[in-house]
Amino acid sequence: MQALLIISHGSRRAVSNNELLSLEKNLRLELADSYPIVESAFLEFFPQSIAKAINKCVEEGATTIKVLPYFLAAGVHVTDDIPSEVKLASEHYQSLNVDILPHIGSSEKITSVISSMLTTTEI
Amino acid sequence: MQALLIISHGSRRAVSNNELLSLEKNLRLELADSYPIVESAFLEFFPQSIAKAINKCVEEGATTIKVLPYFLAAGVHVTDDIPSEVKLASEHYQSLNVDILPHIGSSEKITSVISSMLTTTEI
Repeated sequence: MQALLIISHGSRRAVSNNELLSLEKNLRLELADSYPIVESAFLEFFPQSIAKAINKCVEEGATTIKVLPYFLAAGVHVTDDIPSEVKLASEHYQSLNVDILPHIGSSEKITSVISSMLTTTEI
Repeated sequence: MQALLIISHGSRRAVSNNELLSLEKNLRLELADSYPIVESAFLEFFPQSIAKAINKCVEEGATTIKVLPYFLAAGVHVTDDIPSEVKLASEHYQSLNVDILPHIGSSEKITSVISSMLTTTEI
């Protein structure tokens, strides 16, 4: 069973962290067929840590976890912190496949998200 | 004349900051008709500060600047730092209109960016 784990930076502001939880809910609905498990975790200021989220995915039956770094640019959090925390949290699950996807900012679709925001606000 | 100013967090890694410069180039091509001026700035670790970017927009003839906070969640940078830095950098231009748009993470299209990334990596 496939799980999707979204890892965000996290903020001191609860309202900000709630945005990720709301995205998690939307993805859970949208990806129900291919990803029956969708979890989110925060690198800092965490309501849920990466280790806790990975444990939860495994408990729910995940055999593969796709990790999406929810970051716009590949700073140190993306290149170093997420890979090392994910490795540390998952290496004792010997039959678990964990793939770290490219960060969301690397998607070519970001340009069109911006275009559509500009169009919306101009109406 | 309308300008678009993208404000990103900035990173210690030059490669990471170059991602924003590359986005800036793409947007310059895509939005040429409606936004003849596209600039980017960094909140921290800056190759270009917000004040410098706003001055540059004005020098290039901008009468309106749309500021896009290039952040996924509305943390303190989005709610406090960007508005105060933008105000400070623009208030002495009396005939300049400056609008701060919602942060990119608030776009409903983010969910579909993630879906498309998952589909791409599964092929």
